Amino acid sequence: MHPFDVAVANADTNPPWRNFIGPFGGLTAAQAMRAVLVHPQRLGDPVALTVNFAAAIADGPYEVIAQPVRTNRSTQHWTITVRQGDEVVLTGIAMTAVRRDTWAATEVEVPQVPRPSDVPLPTTPARVEWIKRYEMRFVEGAFPAQWDNADTGRSLTRLWLRDNPPRPLDFASLTAMSDCFFPRIWLRRAHFVPLGTVTMTVYFHAREEDLKQTGTGYLLGQTRGQGFRAGYFDHTAQVWNEAGTLLATTTQVYYFKE
Amino acid sequence: MHPFDVAVANADTNPPWRNFIGPFGGLTAAQAMRAVLVHPQRLGDPVALTVNFAAAIADGPYEVIAQPVRTNRSTQHWTITVRQGDEVVLTGIAMTAVRRDTWAATEVEVPQVPRPSDVPLPTTPARVEWIKRYEMRFVEGAFPAQWDNADTGRSLTRLWLRDNPPRPLDFASLTAMSDCFFPRIWLRRAHFVPLGTVTMTVYFHAREEDLKQTGTGYLLGQTRGQGFRAGYFDHTAQVWNEAGTLLATTTQVYYFKE
Repeated sequence: MHPFDVAVANADTNPPWRNFIGPFGGLTAAQAMRAVLVHPQRLGDPVALTVNFAAAIADGPYEVIAQPVRTNRSTQHWTITVRQGDEVVLTGIAMTAVRRDTWAATEVEVPQVPRPSDVPLPTTPARVEWIKRYEMRFVEGAFPAQWDNADTGRSLTRLWLRDNPPRPLDFASLTAMSDCFFPRIWLRRAHFVPLGTVTMTVYFHAREEDLKQTGTGYLLGQTRGQGFRAGYFDHTAQVWNEAGTLLATTTQVYYFKE
Repeated sequence: MHPFDVAVANADTNPPWRNFIGPFGGLTAAQAMRAVLVHPQRLGDPVALTVNFAAAIADGPYEVIAQPVRTNRSTQHWTITVRQGDEVVLTGIAMTAVRRDTWAATEVEVPQVPRPSDVPLPTTPARVEWIKRYEMRFVEGAFPAQWDNADTGRSLTRLWLRDNPPRPLDFASLTAMSDCFFPRIWLRRAHFVPLGTVTMTVYFHAREEDLKQTGTGYLLGQTRGQGFRAGYFDHTAQVWNEAGTLLATTTQVYYFKE
């Protein structure tokens, strides 16, 4: 069994997915998404997921609850809660839908970048465990080479990304990989501050056939910060496959401490 | 009393805010935000709000319920539900926080545009009632002059926007105005299709003092679609005040029918 399959189904301590504090948020978001995906009443495929991280998850078991609260003819609305003991640690809402072919266009431009095999792997050691679960090849905007507090004025990152070891893409792993961007403020400021994601939204442009077509191939991720102020900052991001199909667009807000 | 104050506090039919079907979604989102804002247990100011529109609201009363589900030292997490009769018509989650001064930067560039007084009001009549509640001055990407099905390849809109009549900005009205962009697919295709927002997320960069400073001034909105496929499309957007302060960033997914 692939490590992601083991972890995404295990609402308990997952040592290989440790972050600075608690598990990698992308794994928790994927568990939230999976709770919808495996629900016997699910209608259609994911269109949108938003999760708010209310507190760090401590070691030990927790509970991921997805509930369909409104089912229409071709759409369904979900609430998601992760509880640990008596406490809420994540709130979420999602929407799934039966999707049909229509006029289509991708307006956000696919960046012109070298192929994955032409982009080297990072040589810096992983600071946290979960990073090792992904193969990340930074095309632009890797971790600062020097943490010298020089405001670079720019927080754009582009990278090739896939599961390590490779694994066929599905909606749960796409959710997790939508959270693989390192915090924009570290790149922008070349300054290390403690932080964490407080909310993440993923919009799924991919349908089942796009996931199949992507298979174990690389994803191309692009992200940039928008505004940094009063302890919080946001980013927008896009995720394509190697064929240039837009799979997901995603946004986050992080808190940071000084 | 200003029409927005009347409507935002009235969880019932609001004829001046009618959209094609049901009320203007921005008003409903503002009512969801307001339910948090007026809650006696609220801690801090809004950081993020996501609302999923599960069904059109019919004429008649409905109920807007905000519940704090996790309160930390300086942050608070909310679930929001709008019910009409026995049915859920909106699900939402929000986060509020006590915010403190930190290092700050705005990375998304403020577009260089003419001043509001130099941008004419539209001459085309409003198709729906709620449009009249806003003064919209399109700098770029107004409604198509001809609905001729010519794919323009571009769905960028920039506009100056304020309440009509003017009203001092607050978090509820900023939420509503974050939904004032007309659907990107109409601009992109110059083709009219039935549609509606299914999810909207607003990230609040503005603090109370930014709202005060903005007062009754104009907001500068910018939006562009990212991906259009299989009955759904998304956009990202930014909202600044006249002084160039980034007040909010926001994203949406719409469904559309062909």
